[in-house]
Parts: sequence; C-alpha cells; structure tokens
Amino acid sequence: MDDRAEHPFIELIRHRGSVERFDPRGALDESQIREIVADTVEAPSSFNIQHWRFVAVRRAEDKERLRRAAFGQRQVSEAAVTFIILGDLLGVEKLSEAMNAAVKQGALARNKADSWIRQAERIYADGRQARDEAFRSCSLAAMTMMLAAEARGLGSCPLSGFDPKQVKREFGIGDRFEPVMLLAVGIPLEEETARKPRFDVDQVLSFDRSRF
Amino acid sequence: MDDRAEHPFIELIRHRGSVERFDPRGALDESQIREIVADTVEAPSSFNIQHWRFVAVRRAEDKERLRRAAFGQRQVSEAAVTFIILGDLLGVEKLSEAMNAAVKQGALARNKADSWIRQAERIYADGRQARDEAFRSCSLAAMTMMLAAEARGLGSCPLSGFDPKQVKREFGIGDRFEPVMLLAVGIPLEEETARKPRFDVDQVLSFDRSRF
Repeated sequence: MDDRAEHPFIELIRHRGSVERFDPRGALDESQIREIVADTVEAPSSFNIQHWRFVAVRRAEDKERLRRAAFGQRQVSEAAVTFIILGDLLGVEKLSEAMNAAVKQGALARNKADSWIRQAERIYADGRQARDEAFRSCSLAAMTMMLAAEARGLGSCPLSGFDPKQVKREFGIGDRFEPVMLLAVGIPLEEETARKPRFDVDQVLSFDRSRF
Repeated sequence: MDDRAEHPFIELIRHRGSVERFDPRGALDESQIREIVADTVEAPSSFNIQHWRFVAVRRAEDKERLRRAAFGQRQVSEAAVTFIILGDLLGVEKLSEAMNAAVKQGALARNKADSWIRQAERIYADGRQARDEAFRSCSLAAMTMMLAAEARGLGSCPLSGFDPKQVKREFGIGDRFEPVMLLAVGIPLEEETARKPRFDVDQVLSFDRSRF
C-alpha cells in the first residue's frame, strides 16, 4: 500500500469543502460541463444501470427558479451551473441495452449478462429498492462530480434541501425520475473554504463486530 | 479551468473498476484501514451530520457470515476487508455536538449553527427524509472510500445486493442504523478490471430544461 500522502487525490479530498460563495460572474461553457459529466459517469452503479441523469441549469432565470425550489439557497443561483441530479426509478428497463453493449465490448460474458438482467428485474420490481438504488448510485456520481470539479480548480456545493415536487414541476421532469441532489459548481469567491471538523476515526469505525 | 488530462484524479477515476476477484491472501492491518477511513470521512454530509459508521469485517469467519447475508457474493470474503457502511437514521441527534465543534474551531458562526440545528431537526423529524439523507451521505462516503483505496493501489467492489435484516442481526447492529452498502477492499488478482461501457454524455445530460 502506498503512503497516504503520495497520491495527489488525498490532497484533493482534503482541500475540497462545500463552497458558500461563488463568483456570480463565473461561467462554464457547454464543453466544460460535458467534460465534468464525462468524468462523473465513471462512477459505478448497481448492475451498471447508470440511474443518473443531469440537468445543467445555467441561465439566470432558470437558476432563480431552481433557487426558489431550494428554499432560497444562494449557491444555486451564484454558481456557474447547478446540476439537478435525477435518479431513474425505472432504470432497470434500460439494463438490457447497457448489458448488450458490455457483452459486445467483451467486458461481460453473455450468460452472466442474462443472469444479471434476471436478478436485477426481480430486485427492482420492488419500488423501495429501486428508489434506494437511485439514491445510492446518484450519490456515488455526485461525489465523483464534486471531485471532478475540484480537480479542475472549481468549487462545488451539494444541496439536499429542496422541494422535489417543485423541482420536477418547474423543470418538466418526468414521473420516473426523482431529484436526488442539487450540485452547484463554479468559481469560488474565496481560495479556502472553512472546512468543518470531522468525528475522529475511532468514533465512526468498529472492527469485526459493530459497536453501533 | 485546467485541462481534463492534467490532474492525476482523472486517471484514478478512469482506472477504477469494480473488482471481480480479490487475492484472498491479501491483508490490511488496522492502521491501513484507519487511514482509508480517515480519507473517507472527508466526504460532505448534510449539515455535517456525518451519518456514516463503518464496520470493518476482516476475520475469515465473519466475512463468511457477511457473504451469506450478501447472497454468496465472493468478493465479500475474498477481499482483505469488507466494510459494512451504516447510515444513522437519527444522526440529527448528534448535530449539536458537531456544530459546537465547528463553532469552537471558527469554521461556523454561532447564530448560523443554531439556525442550522433548528432547520435540520425540523427536516429530519420526517423518517423518510432521514432515511434518504442517510443513503445520500453514506454513498458520498462510499465513493470517496473507493477512490481512497484506488489511490493506494488497492481495488474495491461496492455491493448493494444483501439482506439488510440479516446483516444487522449477524453483526449486532442497532435499530437506528441502516446498512446502506457493503464495500469490499483489497488486492485485485488482475491488474485491470474489465470496465463496463457507459452511456454517452448526451444520453444523460440536458441543458436548462429536462429531456427526462
């Protein structure tokens, strides 16, 4: 195992903090946003279903509408772009397509693909499991997106405080999608964010048996 | 914005794949596991509640019990360690403690801390919102943990296919905690994992209005 300090990733996660104030004059063009999303979808998802969808909200009037649905939190409108990260509650329907692509690419054997499709269809027929998985997979993507932004010298702020019904209505989002998180990305006004302290490792870690 | 290829993080996320076969002789000692967890808790969480708890399962007999609760998936027992990532459904109860630490450290103003505590207590009195948030925050941590492992030359495999009741019973986990994910971490048997193809960016991204 390499030393903790060696890989630049360690610096990245220690430097990342949720940005309070973005430079409202900052902007990102479509190609920059596409690059960030291309990195983001490298995250894993259950059965490679890729439950995530992203609405990149950039226009001032749209950001204002989104901000109102997020209890007025200013990061939503001051960031260059705020992503609505949507989870596909019926993502399993797209599984055959994704599996066929993996088989074709040689990344997966045909019989394994077929067995996965059967398993996944059984599991995600349960609406609660489908919703849980959308939350899991979309959050894995959200973390990757924060780090992809940080790696480009940008800042980010994840927001889970919003009215999902209002977000869906305002942005014309279909019933099969659930807004899991908002993620503001842009140019931070301050060089360093005030990082909040964390519990000690021994307060959150237990070996072999649970203390929790 | 920096060029996509510049930061080593980009290589890290492109190289990471879910490991199918771990070297069952691989082992990690407690200090290595603590280091990985120390990186993991750099993830953000709603109101900095830090809903995550980790049970690091390393002993052969314990990994076997966990594997049985995970429908026999061999990564659980072949990896050096499999983490049970637990979400605290009553995490908001610990918020005052965390906020006081942040105020003391100068990372947060007192009046802001008090307002956050009131807001969070109102939001997370709703059991569904508390559960959603546990899934979100623990998944942010899980993604960070996968990358912290990758940065150390280790491999990982996230697993959401398991029986949460059986996991809780077998490991003596309290009612307030929900197993959100299992994460196997260890030495991969193969240098490269067969990465599954992803949807194109334009299949998952929409600008300003939702196509979804």
